[in-house]
Amino acid sequence: MEQSRPLDALNKARDKRVIVELKNQKQLIGKLKAFDIHINVALEDAEERVDGEIKRKLGEVFVRGDTIIMISPA
Amino acid sequence: MEQSRPLDALNKARDKRVIVELKNQKQLIGKLKAFDIHINVALEDAEERVDGEIKRKLGEVFVRGDTIIMISPA
Amino acid sequence: MEQSRPLDALNKARDKRVIVELKNQKQLIGKLKAFDIHINVALEDAEERVDGEIKRKLGEVFVRGDTIIMISPA
Amino acid sequence: MEQSRPLDALNKARDKRVIVELKNQKQLIGKLKAFDIHINVALEDAEERVDGEIKRKLGEVFVRGDTIIMISPA
Amino acid sequence: MEQSRPLDALNKARDKRVIVELKNQKQLIGKLKAFDIHINVALEDAEERVDGEIKRKLGEVFVRGDTIIMISPA
Amino acid sequence: MEQSRPLDALNKARDKRVIVELKNQKQLIGKLKAFDIHINVALEDAEERVDGEIKRKLGEVFVRGDTIIMISPA
Amino acid sequence: MEQSRPLDALNKARDKRVIVELKNQKQLIGKLKAFDIHINVALEDAEERVDGEIKRKLGEVFVRGDTIIMISPA
Repeated sequence: MEQSRPLDALNKARDKRVIVELKNQKQLIGKLKAFDIHINVALEDAEERVDGEIKRKLGEVFVRGDTIIMISPA
Repeated sequence: MEQSRPLDALNKARDKRVIVELKNQKQLIGKLKAFDIHINVALEDAEERVDGEIKRKLGEVFVRGDTIIMISPA
Repeated sequence: MEQSRPLDALNKARDKRVIVELKNQKQLIGKLKAFDIHINVALEDAEERVDGEIKRKLGEVFVRGDTIIMISPA
Repeated sequence: MEQSRPLDALNKARDKRVIVELKNQKQLIGKLKAFDIHINVALEDAEERVDGEIKRKLGEVFVRGDTIIMISPA
Repeated sequence: MEQSRPLDALNKARDKRVIVELKNQKQLIGKLKAFDIHINVALEDAEERVDGEIKRKLGEVFVRGDTIIMISPA
Repeated sequence: MEQSRPLDALNKARDKRVIVELKNQKQLIGKLKAFDIHINVALEDAEERVDGEIKRKLGEVFVRGDTIIMISPA
Repeated sequence: MEQSRPLDALNKARDKRVIVELKNQKQLIGKLKAFDIHINVALEDAEERVDGEIKRKLGEVFVRGDTIIMISPA
């Protein structure tokens, strides 16, 4: 049986809403549209949250992978 | 059906005004003219904003990819 | 006799609960489902702890390798 | 029609005066003589500015790419 | 005569107790079971020390190489 | 006509005295003996300056490229 | 005549006592036994100094290259 890889977890989250935790202590919440091996990510209907509060509506957003700590289901 | 990649999101934003969020807590706003796989970016008619206020007109600007957090429509 | 490699230690921890220590001083605890050579990691039934206290239930989470300090059995 | 790349923007700035914004919050201003794919840069008649004030005349200067945030016309 | 390489020093320390000094100012002490070219390290019977005091028993631990400053005999 | 590259600027400075500006806010001043594509640098008759004052005579010194901001004639 | 490279400077220091300046503001002093292209270094009879005072005897120590600022004769 083939072992799963970490990117499989991202693949399962495609088209679902995710929380993207950033190194600058902010969170982005949006629908995961795309990712690549650098963990660059494209979100749709995204918004920025700081301490649980919505700070900004972003719409479609590209996030550079090296600023990301983790990604989990919203 | 082919799955979309994060750079497709940037490609759609070409020649449109975008907000480029930098790691130093500043924002650049300008027309996205070009980008590459390092997320190096060239903007036109760009200006620098800090806390929502225009701080400087930059015109044409080259931004090194590793200083960028995210890019979204302006 | 072949010498062991560091990733063997991770392999032995597969499907077991681990503590993932992050550079931002938080800990993730969950079942190790997958990892790769960048030490990108996928956890299941994960929760975030700060100073020993559970702060958040995360469920399935993808963690970018470069944010990780160490991984040990929970 | 071929799409432009970010380094094209730098190429257009060759032999012109540019502002190089550094990660340490200083600015270098000088004539752009050369650059490479790492965004290593060589300037001529360069000076260092901090908060808009000239702090030092540098003459010819080599700048390591990974210290640069952005480059724009002076 | 062939010149020694830095990893030879690590190889000599295999199966011996070492002090692993981390960038976050903590120390790990344990038996060095494995390492690779990224200086990813696997320790056995490891414990975490802060300012010379044992803070936590870790058992078997995987340490990501880029968090390590130096490794010396315990 | 071939375009100049940033390392050409360093090459011209070979065997001349240069100021090497480091990311830790110190300066090294010495004769540039060698450099490579990582901008690792070897200086001769080097001294360390902090805020314009000589702090230490170093003699021959090897400097790791990723700690360097810029190099200019002394 | 072939031009010298920065690693030649390290090679000349082999088996001699060197000062290794670290990014965490500490110094290691010891006999340089080995180095590689990442500037990973192995020292013998090493000791750690902070502000010129010996803080710790380390004996044989492996130092990860990316923590090093510079290396000079002791």
